[in-house]
Amino acid sequence: MIPNRFVSSLSTVCKASMKLSLSLALLAAVAVFVRGGPLDDHYHPSFPEEPTRSRNAQQEQTIEYWQEHAKQTVDTLVNRKENTNIAKNVIMFLGDGMSISTVAMARVYAGGEERQLSFEKFPHIGMSKTYCVDYQVPDSACTATAYLTGVKGNYETIGVNAQVPSYHCTAQLDASTHTHSIGKWAMDAGKDAGLVTTTRVTHASPSGVYAHTANRDWESDDYIRSDGCNPELIDDIAKQLIHGETGKRLKVIMGGGRREFLDMDLDPEYQTRGYRRDGRNLIQEWLDMADGTENRTYVWNKQDLFRVDPTRTDKLLALFEPGHCAYNLDRVHKQMEGEPTLAEMVDRATDIMSKNDKGFFLFVEGGRIDHGHHDTWGRLAIDETVQFSEAIELARKKFSEEDTLIVVTSDHSHSVSFSGYPSRTNDIFGTAGTASDGLPYMTLSYANGMGYYDHIDPETKGRKDVRKMDTTADYFRFPATLPVGSETHGGEDVAVYASGPWSHLFTGSYEQNTIPHMMAYALCVGDGLKACPATA
Amino acid sequence: MIPNRFVSSLSTVCKASMKLSLSLALLAAVAVFVRGGPLDDHYHPSFPEEPTRSRNAQQEQTIEYWQEHAKQTVDTLVNRKENTNIAKNVIMFLGDGMSISTVAMARVYAGGEERQLSFEKFPHIGMSKTYCVDYQVPDSACTATAYLTGVKGNYETIGVNAQVPSYHCTAQLDASTHTHSIGKWAMDAGKDAGLVTTTRVTHASPSGVYAHTANRDWESDDYIRSDGCNPELIDDIAKQLIHGETGKRLKVIMGGGRREFLDMDLDPEYQTRGYRRDGRNLIQEWLDMADGTENRTYVWNKQDLFRVDPTRTDKLLALFEPGHCAYNLDRVHKQMEGEPTLAEMVDRATDIMSKNDKGFFLFVEGGRIDHGHHDTWGRLAIDETVQFSEAIELARKKFSEEDTLIVVTSDHSHSVSFSGYPSRTNDIFGTAGTASDGLPYMTLSYANGMGYYDHIDPETKGRKDVRKMDTTADYFRFPATLPVGSETHGGEDVAVYASGPWSHLFTGSYEQNTIPHMMAYALCVGDGLKACPATA
Repeated sequence: MIPNRFVSSLSTVCKASMKLSLSLALLAAVAVFVRGGPLDDHYHPSFPEEPTRSRNAQQEQTIEYWQEHAKQTVDTLVNRKENTNIAKNVIMFLGDGMSISTVAMARVYAGGEERQLSFEKFPHIGMSKTYCVDYQVPDSACTATAYLTGVKGNYETIGVNAQVPSYHCTAQLDASTHTHSIGKWAMDAGKDAGLVTTTRVTHASPSGVYAHTANRDWESDDYIRSDGCNPELIDDIAKQLIHGETGKRLKVIMGGGRREFLDMDLDPEYQTRGYRRDGRNLIQEWLDMADGTENRTYVWNKQDLFRVDPTRTDKLLALFEPGHCAYNLDRVHKQMEGEPTLAEMVDRATDIMSKNDKGFFLFVEGGRIDHGHHDTWGRLAIDETVQFSEAIELARKKFSEEDTLIVVTSDHSHSVSFSGYPSRTNDIFGTAGTASDGLPYMTLSYANGMGYYDHIDPETKGRKDVRKMDTTADYFRFPATLPVGSETHGGEDVAVYASGPWSHLFTGSYEQNTIPHMMAYALCVGDGLKACPATA
Repeated sequence: MIPNRFVSSLSTVCKASMKLSLSLALLAAVAVFVRGGPLDDHYHPSFPEEPTRSRNAQQEQTIEYWQEHAKQTVDTLVNRKENTNIAKNVIMFLGDGMSISTVAMARVYAGGEERQLSFEKFPHIGMSKTYCVDYQVPDSACTATAYLTGVKGNYETIGVNAQVPSYHCTAQLDASTHTHSIGKWAMDAGKDAGLVTTTRVTHASPSGVYAHTANRDWESDDYIRSDGCNPELIDDIAKQLIHGETGKRLKVIMGGGRREFLDMDLDPEYQTRGYRRDGRNLIQEWLDMADGTENRTYVWNKQDLFRVDPTRTDKLLALFEPGHCAYNLDRVHKQMEGEPTLAEMVDRATDIMSKNDKGFFLFVEGGRIDHGHHDTWGRLAIDETVQFSEAIELARKKFSEEDTLIVVTSDHSHSVSFSGYPSRTNDIFGTAGTASDGLPYMTLSYANGMGYYDHIDPETKGRKDVRKMDTTADYFRFPATLPVGSETHGGEDVAVYASGPWSHLFTGSYEQNTIPHMMAYALCVGDGLKACPATA
């Protein structure tokens, strides 16, 4: 526990000896390099060992490689044309909690620092400011209000302005507080709208498409009751999805969350009961709402999803789990064969959405990036990010840049860091260097979270040695600076990546609530500015 | 030290009681909210107290405010025109270590979450991938090689390709390994070039303009000797600045670092000796190099700088400190009246640079953002970021967008987090919430660094109570997850902000070494692609 700040006089010795011997390797790694006097630098460690090399090691050593690489990039950038077509379709991909550092780490996990995730190849990038009206660092509720309805609200509230305080029992009854999503704007213009998520379909982010609620927790009636409010007076989120003015018109609803729609009816997969206490089966109610020849289909597993004939399906409700959809790594490692990937969900959803000649707005959430981070399960969060990227790649290949705008963004950052000085090709879930206490430390870590406890040695109260832990487990908790039950969000900006009509609007720095107005401009829907002539 | 994960059953009680009483406030703040079953969320804490409100509190509660705000932004974005003028001038601003989180925190420090720093108002934003050839997380040396010379190299090396290993005694003698900066490209095209920095002018970032060295530490001859190499065989960085083929042609050299140019000559301000051991006074040598009627001026304090008549000065060397320039907060709080601000330096430098009708390339570094972070002195780092922003604002107002491209970026990120759930207008250097150990925690923290020791209670080995520490001191060390002598860089992308001719090239995601090639395209210099016709 004694700082290493006084070992600085060893630095010159260390550096000289590096060329002669590696025997001082450990000292060199932990030494603070100060030389000459108090004004000198001590900022950057030197490393005694040869770093690993990149996959392009030989090429990357030449000047020509980088010049040619840059030339090709500049050529692409110069020849990038502004696409001012009116968008027929908009697909919005939301990586929940996908911070800039999360994207960079996912890139390494997906193959290397030099790679680009699918959406990093998009021509335009901007930065979105995520704060909400009452908090500097937001949650997924007030941000969903911003990026889907174009208005910032309060923490934990969805689809209402900031006159509605979180947990207020009646404020949401005043329709003048309601903010409406671009999903509604699109349907009002004759297009279709839908949502796909890896969370419960009643969770904060997807709720932004259709709900108006003073609290994100009110997914079914019992939560409202337990918060001291009257579920007969205000509609829970699941009820708003099935019967609300926007929810009932959605063509595709896909994700998890069966339990919020059921009371005593048994879950088909786990034989558990639902969370409702009003006796209703909202899934059956949704099926019963089919009018005339309308063909509605409900599925709860991948096999049934794959059997859906999009040409004969008007509306699809797909709920793959009672709670959130499984983490992809669980799906793979636990052989959860009933669970589709996010890319498979997007593929089937867009098959159905594509039938409307006027086009569609589809919201797609990679929602469990956020959950992995909250539990300091860095590997799960990063793996979900790669899954998210694959779903975007499928969509970009499936729909033309000429008529389909794809916008990829996140709602907020997380407290996760990508730090230390790992060498090229190093495992992003591995160690980055040696700390002053002589123990290695991880490249990935959190400013707070439950990982704190896992990394405290109960005897010494100092840091545990990660070499004695199974850091390769899917559920390995990465270290955190301090303990909180759930690792927190981060307050810095998140990136916005855009491709297709009017994607050039999306560069620059702007408030998060501008995003749906930009999408609406390209799609020619809503009450704001539009790309189409006023008479259209 | 016992996790709070088992207090979850209290959550329903807590929530209900919130409406009746604040007596359970502490419990609510630390409780992990889980309800119903194991699949339920426990991700987001709720808060018992009313948050503080923003400065626009009343307005921000209305739908109209946000819709009008968005409409104005979309209108600006839609009317943004591509500027395809050929740039007469390029000014590159480099915020050393200015991560995305640093920018967001500086915004709060400068006035509020809703503010924009000067460069955030620029029309185009991109993302730069910062890894170097041998390391996933880079230093300021290999990144300077990338963003100034257009080639990626090895950690600690500057102006050479990756065939040159760090510390190699002779590899840099092979001129075929040398990479040349856009400063040289500009001068070869008849323009002027110069550099301004708050670090030593021989430090890693500014060295990228003019040096070729196997190690960033070789700022004067004695460092080369102490690393076991021959300073008579290879030129130190200071010598390259004064006598090198690029350095000797620079019109303006401004920053700190007098000691690297002097041996036994006394420093004029502190009466200390220089760090050279070759008997040379490179400042005098620089003055003596004036040919014919050329007017060269050397100054070492603000008063003399302000007396410089730009119309009568052909070349200016200004070295304000033996080491780095003072932190701005030291300048203010310690009444260091001889030190100029970065904005004042940029103003004087550009007065001189502007005299060439063919234009100029100027490199400006806010270099101590990085140093504040390395020492976990978050307040210093954030304050330096605001100073950096003010220098950019001055430059943007001084030069027309019609003929001057300004590019603002960073070389690499840091391990700093902006986390927790602070309410609007909360002090960015204050606390963000209460941890599971019952103690408050800071919004700003680091993944590693010396702040670790400051926050460990020597008796309990647990976290110290920050309420008993002077968190308002300029040199308060913020907490860190683990101890390293110098807080490390971060590996995620940094942002690139551009305004002026061809600024639209700078959106999208690209390798950091593309940046000088994009600037050269707009400026019509160098051997790569150019905006001007081939015959120009």
